[in-house]
Amino acid sequence: MTTPDNTSDAPAEQTGVAAQDWATASADPQYRAALVDLLGALAYGELAAFERLAEDAKLAPTLADKAELAKMASAEFHHFERLRNRLTEIGEEPTQAMEPFVAALDGFHKQTAPSDWLEGLVKAYVGDSIASDFYREVAARLDSDTRELVLAVLDDTGHAGFAVEKVRAAIDADPRVGGRLALWARRLMGEALSQSQRVVADRDALSTMLVGGVADGFDLAEVGRMFSRITEAHTKRMAALGLAA
Amino acid sequence: MTTPDNTSDAPAEQTGVAAQDWATASADPQYRAALVDLLGALAYGELAAFERLAEDAKLAPTLADKAELAKMASAEFHHFERLRNRLTEIGEEPTQAMEPFVAALDGFHKQTAPSDWLEGLVKAYVGDSIASDFYREVAARLDSDTRELVLAVLDDTGHAGFAVEKVRAAIDADPRVGGRLALWARRLMGEALSQSQRVVADRDALSTMLVGGVADGFDLAEVGRMFSRITEAHTKRMAALGLAA
Repeated sequence: MTTPDNTSDAPAEQTGVAAQDWATASADPQYRAALVDLLGALAYGELAAFERLAEDAKLAPTLADKAELAKMASAEFHHFERLRNRLTEIGEEPTQAMEPFVAALDGFHKQTAPSDWLEGLVKAYVGDSIASDFYREVAARLDSDTRELVLAVLDDTGHAGFAVEKVRAAIDADPRVGGRLALWARRLMGEALSQSQRVVADRDALSTMLVGGVADGFDLAEVGRMFSRITEAHTKRMAALGLAA
Repeated sequence: MTTPDNTSDAPAEQTGVAAQDWATASADPQYRAALVDLLGALAYGELAAFERLAEDAKLAPTLADKAELAKMASAEFHHFERLRNRLTEIGEEPTQAMEPFVAALDGFHKQTAPSDWLEGLVKAYVGDSIASDFYREVAARLDSDTRELVLAVLDDTGHAGFAVEKVRAAIDADPRVGGRLALWARRLMGEALSQSQRVVADRDALSTMLVGGVADGFDLAEVGRMFSRITEAHTKRMAALGLAA
């Protein structure tokens, strides 16, 4: 996994909530609402990722490749389980918390169904990497208990590493493949941004929390900066992979 | 999970190999060949089950139901991992060991794609149960190391229990559903038997081992009795579920 080089422009200071545990932080109903949203979005994101990776495993040219994608799918399922269990622990109905994010995530996957194995690999890698970046971005804004959970899930990502080698080999063998996959990677990122913006627009409490604190209210520019950092990290990764984005 | 009532006619004595560990037992090349076949068949069976359960999860009417089927799929993937790792440990190429069983297992799943959620549940339950019965039948014929692995995998089945309750509720709500699902369960078993017989006919070493020992040669009648025991257990389970088989 490539670590995104976003240390320079990421906010270094932690907001007050980062020093609190869940019991303290969740006394603020707005923080609580934002967290339920976040856990619901992440949980459904992982469940949908499970489903799509399992589906894309069908495109695998060999049994060993199929097993690799199935392994990623299974890892996503375990992430889902942890997030769902946390929702239950804090007294929320997981289905209800996930429901608001079904349309955006299903929309993303519907718009980005890979048409072949290489597209599936690029999607697995891009998806895994963006998810890592987002988990890392969001971790700093969370109470200590939720942060621990999010970092634990993050720690278990990076299953897509196998994809890099295979994509590189395919581009070496036929450089035209690189052009097609670069377009594909751009489409993945575009669709991810467009669905994220839909969520940002719909879910005020979540969006406000994501941009660092309730006090200052909703800061669209800061959401934009977070998206930029993630996009930039994506662009660097694609370049490293031999895909000019 | 219902335990099949096959204590009366199952062979009670263990063959000589059951007292041996893998190192000793595998010195016999015919036993070794049979075991590589068995592990290959079980491994691909689990991988294919993963893939189909993940696919059938799409039919789920609720997110909670989808998560239940995804959980089963993920459990099957972990079974696959253990069996594949064992193949690697004993110096075999997992893909090569699985290859001979792809056609039969894919054939089974192709012929039994559920057309709705209830059919998917019945298939998950029937598949899980038949697999348990088969693992239990075969365990007694294995060297101590392989037996331990097979029993460990078996111990982790039974994820389909949730299906029973839902199928029963559906039949209570509309008894005609029972007739349709009874037909479906019969078709599942028929297709499973037909694909198994194809494997038995193709893979001599495996078949000979399955019926208890290399010494007496291939005993088709004993294979038949094993299939009968499994079919009988299936029939009892279906009756308990309210499906007259």
